[in-house]
Amino acid sequence: MLFYWLNLIGIFFFTISGSLAARDKKHYHDYFGVFFTGFLTAIGGGTLRDMMLGAYPISWLSDSNILISIIIAFLVTLIFKNAIIRLRRTLFLFDTIGVGIYTILGVEKSLEYHVNPFAAVILGLISAVFGGVIRDTLINEIPLIFAKEIYATACITGAVLYTSMLYLQIDPNIAAPACMSVIIIFRILAVKYKLALPKFDPGHNTPDSL
Amino acid sequence: MLFYWLNLIGIFFFTISGSLAARDKKHYHDYFGVFFTGFLTAIGGGTLRDMMLGAYPISWLSDSNILISIIIAFLVTLIFKNAIIRLRRTLFLFDTIGVGIYTILGVEKSLEYHVNPFAAVILGLISAVFGGVIRDTLINEIPLIFAKEIYATACITGAVLYTSMLYLQIDPNIAAPACMSVIIIFRILAVKYKLALPKFDPGHNTPDSL
Amino acid sequence: MLFYWLNLIGIFFFTISGSLAARDKKHYHDYFGVFFTGFLTAIGGGTLRDMMLGAYPISWLSDSNILISIIIAFLVTLIFKNAIIRLRRTLFLFDTIGVGIYTILGVEKSLEYHVNPFAAVILGLISAVFGGVIRDTLINEIPLIFAKEIYATACITGAVLYTSMLYLQIDPNIAAPACMSVIIIFRILAVKYKLALPKFDPGHNTPDSL
Repeated sequence: MLFYWLNLIGIFFFTISGSLAARDKKHYHDYFGVFFTGFLTAIGGGTLRDMMLGAYPISWLSDSNILISIIIAFLVTLIFKNAIIRLRRTLFLFDTIGVGIYTILGVEKSLEYHVNPFAAVILGLISAVFGGVIRDTLINEIPLIFAKEIYATACITGAVLYTSMLYLQIDPNIAAPACMSVIIIFRILAVKYKLALPKFDPGHNTPDSL
Repeated sequence: MLFYWLNLIGIFFFTISGSLAARDKKHYHDYFGVFFTGFLTAIGGGTLRDMMLGAYPISWLSDSNILISIIIAFLVTLIFKNAIIRLRRTLFLFDTIGVGIYTILGVEKSLEYHVNPFAAVILGLISAVFGGVIRDTLINEIPLIFAKEIYATACITGAVLYTSMLYLQIDPNIAAPACMSVIIIFRILAVKYKLALPKFDPGHNTPDSL
Repeated sequence: MLFYWLNLIGIFFFTISGSLAARDKKHYHDYFGVFFTGFLTAIGGGTLRDMMLGAYPISWLSDSNILISIIIAFLVTLIFKNAIIRLRRTLFLFDTIGVGIYTILGVEKSLEYHVNPFAAVILGLISAVFGGVIRDTLINEIPLIFAKEIYATACITGAVLYTSMLYLQIDPNIAAPACMSVIIIFRILAVKYKLALPKFDPGHNTPDSL
């Protein structure tokens, strides 16, 4: 039940993140384009995860609450867009909350399907970030996950922690919110203090490299 | 039976649309690149739909008529390319016919798999436009669906109409062609009279935004 | 058993190819970005193939040897990166070996799932090249398969040959390595002697077309 509600909340934040990103670019997005970018951002990661697991039916196809959550989030974006945008880093924050929730949900569902623990961590990561990869690709950006500071590292940390906690028989209803918080806080601190993984080859970091 | 043939016809038009788009760009496409772009445009939407539904086997893997339809369309493109290109808006027209057919086929198949009606509409849209999204991404364009005037709106209108007609027990063999025509005519009129959804944020429409 | 080991070897070479490509670009890739690009390059084609076939569970989700192979390849890339890069055409060579192996593995698995032979050839091609398409899209290049000389042609030749040899009851343990070699040698010779398919429309080959 907790996971069901967390899923709806994750969907909600991802929709706002996707809609804002579409609006934020100078590409020629009409209302539908903004809605659809939000929609794909929201369902992209979970859909890919379920397709990889062979977990049919995919949730948003059978559970209309997910679509209702997306529509509410889209309307919230429309109505409050100026307020949302004025708060700096909003897109970042909403994306981070979505990513935190979805990483753990992805690990949880993968383990239900008897995926090996290492693959479950990666699948948690993929289900968390793939919506954002779609979003960034659609608006012709290099996906955030590849271009920016600590991001996946936070997800992987949280996912490994969650897998370990389940292994230690800790109640998922406690472990899940805890690990989601770890991811979200880790990511926020990383941005605030500009933590970053070392670059693979610093020589390539010319000024136009971002 | 009607749906089987409509599928082949949709495949045919999508292949031409994809092949022409590849040829139309100044990227370095050889014959294979043109064929493969046409192929992916043709099967992309239906394949994603079937993967989302868990509807195995995917049709083009088991029914070789689909591949034959693609090959014939590719040869037609090769032979008549100059004539086809001279007719202005040909790419647009072929894409529109494919989209009209595929939207309704997508809704139909989704409902067979007991998807909720709202999700069936979205899945109809996705199966109609995803081939074009692949095509546009491969040739490094912003996908038409996001960048241009009324497009998805036409699909959604037709899809909602079709779902409603089925609910009212209207024969699918009548409802399907009717709704496909609605989509195609709607889209053609929208382009002819430059109808467009309001932009999400007009301030972003700088001259270089397209 | 042969196929199992060939799969691990293909994964190994694709990981190096993906990691090197990420490192080679001036985009801002940190270590994780390089690893993840290598990972997606390695598993992309096989995952898409298995999802299209409905072949669950997807191998890397259940067999941790695949992930171990990816990690070893990534470490090899890290340790020997300067040596690897100094050898010109290394990226090309590793990609080619991966593509050769994966084409035949893709055809083999597709035929196991009773796909029609023509579709098996295309699915072999897709499973071989899709990882590279992901890699090139992630680093914002036009996918190699569309932009460069003979490439898919080599895969298709090998795939058709393999399908024919199976039809003639030749032992797969002999046919597979033979056809993989054909693909690899074909591709190397094509590049060495600058063989290319005729362009679809030579008039478009302006100097900036690549």
